Amino acid sequence: MLKLYDFLPSGNCYKIRLLLTQLRIPFERVALNILNGETRTPEFLSKNSNGRVPILEIEPGKFLSESNAILFYLSEGTEFFPNDSWERSKVMQWLFFEQYSHESYIATSRFWISILGKAEDYRDALNQKREPGYAALTIMENHLTNHRFFVGERYTIADIGLFAYTHVADEGGFDLTKFPAILAWIERVKAQPQYISITQY
Amino acid sequence: MLKLYDFLPSGNCYKIRLLLTQLRIPFERVALNILNGETRTPEFLSKNSNGRVPILEIEPGKFLSESNAILFYLSEGTEFFPNDSWERSKVMQWLFFEQYSHESYIATSRFWISILGKAEDYRDALNQKREPGYAALTIMENHLTNHRFFVGERYTIADIGLFAYTHVADEGGFDLTKFPAILAWIERVKAQPQYISITQY
Repeated sequence: MLKLYDFLPSGNCYKIRLLLTQLRIPFERVALNILNGETRTPEFLSKNSNGRVPILEIEPGKFLSESNAILFYLSEGTEFFPNDSWERSKVMQWLFFEQYSHESYIATSRFWISILGKAEDYRDALNQKREPGYAALTIMENHLTNHRFFVGERYTIADIGLFAYTHVADEGGFDLTKFPAILAWIERVKAQPQYISITQY
Repeated sequence: MLKLYDFLPSGNCYKIRLLLTQLRIPFERVALNILNGETRTPEFLSKNSNGRVPILEIEPGKFLSESNAILFYLSEGTEFFPNDSWERSKVMQWLFFEQYSHESYIATSRFWISILGKAEDYRDALNQKREPGYAALTIMENHLTNHRFFVGERYTIADIGLFAYTHVADEGGFDLTKFPAILAWIERVKAQPQYISITQY
């Protein structure tokens, strides 16, 4: 059985939990608390030298890390990843956008404010993340103004990847009320079959 | 003909130039100077709302952005991207690692020091990028100690993605002499057929 090394509040981990659930693939969940250093132990580092969750254990001793690579692994050949070469590449474009231009601002702000609870300690760093975080949301808003989903007008892992931290962006201090197309898309994602919320499993 | 919007010193652009050359695919090169705001004009933003190069124009008006998504688009079905599902996903793992844990430290340091020439202005920010940049290099070094290439013991887009900024990491102030396995891998990449250097086209 697939084994997911998971930290419940993590959007990156949630991506995998959501897709596995929507694919109706059973999995064993290994809960780790990143706040206690549980992903920095020698044992965990032997599984992922980068010291991050999620990781997926495909079979004993065979590990895949990087949330969006795990989405790719699980979705190839399913309805959640396109068959068309151009659409496949556009899914990848949005997933790389997510990790570089979105997660590093929006997820990190949420981590400091709502998971560590240290908004004051990180005030300067949070301020630096405001403008690029809103820039990422604006790029999404502009795309979603004319599209129901990110690629091919249907729900794919590009939506799962971007949904994970966008729908809780308020927990990072980002005001989504200025982004009506994003808010409508969030409702479309929540209406997908087998949807679970970020702390469900 | 494929059209590559390109800034010559950019490692992200170099990835595409190198792969296109190794695939022997002819392309038209559109040179842009990001230092003059040429990727922030309304015309360019209509091609890529994220305002970054590289972008690849597949046919008139059809654009793909994110360097690693472009590598994926060009390499599927070729010797540079594996057929095996697990190996495909490991390539993706390393490419997401590159954008999240490597490029944002090593490439950004190189940009400030060697492209902008403003090491003094960015001294504090550069200091913050030292430890995570070396951590990324250490992860690569450990992997390459037991492997000739990143995935499947042969040259793939995972190597191209990681090579782009690693082989010029010294221009970002990173000392590669402590990483003999990386240095040996750099020589293996340079020995690949149709190799071109970062400013060649």
